[in-house]
Amino acid sequence: MISNTCILAIDMGATTTKYGLADHEGNILARGRISTTGHASAEALIDELHADVEKTRESLPGLPEIAAVGVGAPCANSITGEIEGATNMPWSHIPLGKLLGRKFGVRVCVANDANIAAAGERMFGVARGLDNFIMLTLGTGVGGGVYCDGHLLNGSRGFAAELGHIPVVGRSERKCACGQSGCLQTYCSASGVVETAVQFLGFTKSPSSLRDIPADKMTSKDIYDAAKEGDRIARDVFSFTGEILGKACASYLAFTDPDAIVLFGGVARASDFILPAMRHALDAYCLNIYKGRVKILVSTLSDDDAALLGAAALTF
Amino acid sequence: MISNTCILAIDMGATTTKYGLADHEGNILARGRISTTGHASAEALIDELHADVEKTRESLPGLPEIAAVGVGAPCANSITGEIEGATNMPWSHIPLGKLLGRKFGVRVCVANDANIAAAGERMFGVARGLDNFIMLTLGTGVGGGVYCDGHLLNGSRGFAAELGHIPVVGRSERKCACGQSGCLQTYCSASGVVETAVQFLGFTKSPSSLRDIPADKMTSKDIYDAAKEGDRIARDVFSFTGEILGKACASYLAFTDPDAIVLFGGVARASDFILPAMRHALDAYCLNIYKGRVKILVSTLSDDDAALLGAAALTF
Repeated sequence: MISNTCILAIDMGATTTKYGLADHEGNILARGRISTTGHASAEALIDELHADVEKTRESLPGLPEIAAVGVGAPCANSITGEIEGATNMPWSHIPLGKLLGRKFGVRVCVANDANIAAAGERMFGVARGLDNFIMLTLGTGVGGGVYCDGHLLNGSRGFAAELGHIPVVGRSERKCACGQSGCLQTYCSASGVVETAVQFLGFTKSPSSLRDIPADKMTSKDIYDAAKEGDRIARDVFSFTGEILGKACASYLAFTDPDAIVLFGGVARASDFILPAMRHALDAYCLNIYKGRVKILVSTLSDDDAALLGAAALTF
Repeated sequence: MISNTCILAIDMGATTTKYGLADHEGNILARGRISTTGHASAEALIDELHADVEKTRESLPGLPEIAAVGVGAPCANSITGEIEGATNMPWSHIPLGKLLGRKFGVRVCVANDANIAAAGERMFGVARGLDNFIMLTLGTGVGGGVYCDGHLLNGSRGFAAELGHIPVVGRSERKCACGQSGCLQTYCSASGVVETAVQFLGFTKSPSSLRDIPADKMTSKDIYDAAKEGDRIARDVFSFTGEILGKACASYLAFTDPDAIVLFGGVARASDFILPAMRHALDAYCLNIYKGRVKILVSTLSDDDAALLGAAALTF
């Protein structure tokens, strides 16, 4: 640890804002959380966060100073430091970097969830030491984070690596929240996987424990549980998901020539059932020069830690 | 010009190796060329190039020293400095960087044609000052070069930005030289455009001056000439080409969030007929956050100069 300082890592979600005080090796020394909602303004949220962090910091031996703040949030823009157009946050626009910088008086690094995940995996996870990899977060949505030549891609306005919104199936009937059809997100997010299951159940009459669950109550975890029990349809759903992922990633390889694709998030927990089909499709659809040379890795960081470690990594 | 030095810029092609001695503002002070073929070995080719360059250099006032060498060649890998797997060069593998470095005794920068074009446009062309843009070279093949955050993407093994080999049409019958089907190159290269014309001529019986040209003799220039004369089918061919380009680029935007797409090469000369459809498709198929914000630019550098200026730019 460089003298007596620590990093404040923040994971701001729609309902809860979690934080950790981390040392410079990424060990989280203390944690806390406050509600993201119920504040009169974004300033009031940051004020409460600051008060809570100070209390937590005072519990640490030696009272380390905060040297920098790293924060991940949905729709956060690394270039402007602002949350822009978030549909599920209390305010759609929050000048997060400015507010935190003013309150804590130190350098603030802001990034969206998927970029945070990529930074975390590179410093503390399965992508440790890799200069070229593509991160896909498969959760409520599908996010992307891309390291190329050791650099996390931002793009002109901070909107690089929106990989969840590249169409992967032509003339698809699946409408995406973004307005397009057939985006990766409509197939490989948690709800995309459920949609596939509902479709597959309609195609056949073969028995499946998933038939006991109403379509509007089904979750990707139900399908994962069924797959673990050997349910054929559930396993087919994940094979199909893997095939879509592999085909999509085959195109991505031609963009940044990565060493690995890294999967993270709820859907990635089913990697045992996703990876064989994904591996096969990746090699079948990629250009010869990439064939068999790109690893598919699955994050081993816990969901909570990944976000905080990624936010901390961003400041290093 | 920094003291009395110059840059040796080399454009190595399958038949001819052209070079220029450039000052540090990119002015080409003198030019020369030798045959790429007819040498006993790659070493012999470099020996003859060196002798020719020395003769040319001696004609320059003040006899400037060569400070660095920049070289563009097909299938050249920026990381290894080698030509790898070139199908149309006298030798499929040439350790170009090493041979030139040994002969000229200075730093050598190597890149493939499309990356050279991107570097040239950024320093001397329509992409001047842009940190984020995607270059597409539309010639015999289709090549890509990508600047993101001011950095020319290399990737793990130097094979980033192989954009010509991302499939753009599902279940396409067009076989690509790379082994896949429906790659961008099969539609937007010179021969791809000819293939489209032959198809379109088969679809209808409407009159076209292109019907006078045998399919195996037709060139993309013939189609461009016909389009200029108002030929409907020729114009439809370029509209279709533009639509494919726009749709492909719509996906690329989600990768690096660029400010511009830059077109270069023989097919790009028909930009008057390509751009309206390309613009429309780009905005129709891209994510909302990019809509209307990405320029489509056409190179204004001459083919010869672009390659030399790009090779020079690479060393800066």
